Amino acid sequence: MAKQFAVVGLGRFGTSVARTLYEMGNDVLGIDSDDDRIQDIADLVTHAVTADSTDENALKSIGIRNFDVVIVAIGNDVKNSILTTLILKELGVKFIVVKAQDELHGKVLEKIGADKVVYPERDMGYRVAHNLISPNILDYIELAPDYSIYEIQVPSKFVGKSLEQLDLRRRYGCNVMAIKHGKDINISPIATDLLHNGDVLVVVGKNEDLDELDENR
Amino acid sequence: MAKQFAVVGLGRFGTSVARTLYEMGNDVLGIDSDDDRIQDIADLVTHAVTADSTDENALKSIGIRNFDVVIVAIGNDVKNSILTTLILKELGVKFIVVKAQDELHGKVLEKIGADKVVYPERDMGYRVAHNLISPNILDYIELAPDYSIYEIQVPSKFVGKSLEQLDLRRRYGCNVMAIKHGKDINISPIATDLLHNGDVLVVVGKNEDLDELDENR
Ligand SMILES: Nc1ncnc2c1ncn2[C@@H]1O[C@H](COP(=O)(O)OP(=O)(O)OP(=O)(O)O)[C@@H](O)[C@H]1O
Ligand SMILES: Nc1ncnc2c1ncn2[C@@H]1O[C@H](COP(=O)(O)OP(=O)(O)OP(=O)(O)O)[C@@H](O)[C@H]1O
Ligand SMILES: [Ca+2]
Ligand SMILES: [Ca+2]
Ligand SMILES: [Ca+2]
Ligand SMILES: [Ca+2]
Repeated sequence: MAKQFAVVGLGRFGTSVARTLYEMGNDVLGIDSDDDRIQDIADLVTHAVTADSTDENALKSIGIRNFDVVIVAIGNDVKNSILTTLILKELGVKFIVVKAQDELHGKVLEKIGADKVVYPERDMGYRVAHNLISPNILDYIELAPDYSIYEIQVPSKFVGKSLEQLDLRRRYGCNVMAIKHGKDINISPIATDLLHNGDVLVVVGKNEDLDELDENR
Repeated sequence: MAKQFAVVGLGRFGTSVARTLYEMGNDVLGIDSDDDRIQDIADLVTHAVTADSTDENALKSIGIRNFDVVIVAIGNDVKNSILTTLILKELGVKFIVVKAQDELHGKVLEKIGADKVVYPERDMGYRVAHNLISPNILDYIELAPDYSIYEIQVPSKFVGKSLEQLDLRRRYGCNVMAIKHGKDINISPIATDLLHNGDVLVVVGKNEDLDELDENR
């Protein structure tokens, strides 16, 4: 049974959450005090309602309690965001996700009952900064504080060599998990597989080892 | 030699980029027209200067041309963001990264010479929505439109079984690349490795196969 979501605050982040959830087949109600925002999103979600989320009666009349998850994406106005979260908690909303302005705002939100606090700009700032420093690291998953999976462009000095010759396990302590060659993805690389210019490697290992492998290109 | 960065527009995103780059050992200049923002960031970056980035002379006197990368993170004011990008391009800045408000803004920025356009709120909205739908998928890397790597909580019905017994390769067409057991990370899993409750799997495969594996818990 499709889950029911409500998104309060249809700025860029709130709109993106609402649209994505709707496109994945869920029921999505968009709420914003600015009627223009409601017009913009009307066709991209199930329903869109102009309302002030700090008005408890407005939220009650919408029946906000019945939604599985409510996402509060009111960005700049910290007071509004906190007041809204308090009201949602009191009305018994089961799972509340709130966008925080900064660490202090985030702490207050957790104390008053937000179930999940997100920092979109902070987290993307971290990703973009890392991407600027290591443009060859296309993406990464942090497995643990010191362990990651990197998706990296094949260093030029690896080109034409086989995994066996490169022996990355011994030299860098990293394991190659997949090789992307143009459109093809090889998810069970074997020792004799050759690396070509422009290939992309998926490698797992300690961060320092992965960084070393990426650095000496 | 540490790279030189300048960040124009010290909102949440700009501040996060500037702080992260500085903490990674780079020289970072923060620029904002709002003096409060400059006070807030002064101790977190190399230098911070109050200036209006649509004022060409101000940018010239700062010597903006000499920076390897300039990040324009002026969010809401699309006119300011476009004007600033134009001026930076004319002044010969080598690599310009710009935060876009929406697709239209992004297109204009690319046309006038932005080297990289980013959409922090949109991209994080996508991530948060997916996380709400599949809370057991802790993180992911999109290798190709239909191929991904998922970091997922071990489904309960896998607990106590070995990789050999589970035979995920045959049944789901996915390869287990690593197993996280508490603090330990096993990056060369073998057939006899057992899965425990609370373990985390790193799996590569087609999106539909990975989703199927995640779904029937
Ligand atoms: N009390 C409220 N009730 C309903 N909507 C509200 C309320 N206060 C603010 N909003 C709406 O929240 C939305 C997001 O607010 P704002 O743009 O200030 O935050 P933001 O963090 O810059 O957003 P984003 O970065 O996601 O674009 C706006 O559309 C605004 O109209
Ligand atoms: N012409 C300008 N010159 C320098 N700084 C500017 C200029 N115009 C706006 N700024 C600064 O850009 C910063 C970000 O702007 P704003 O908060 O409107 O965007 P935002 O997208 O909501 O930011 P974020 O989401 O990253 O918090 C603000 O600190 C603002 O003072
Ligand atoms: Ca609709
Ligand atoms: Ca804002
Ligand atoms: Ca300083
Ligand atoms: Ca924002």
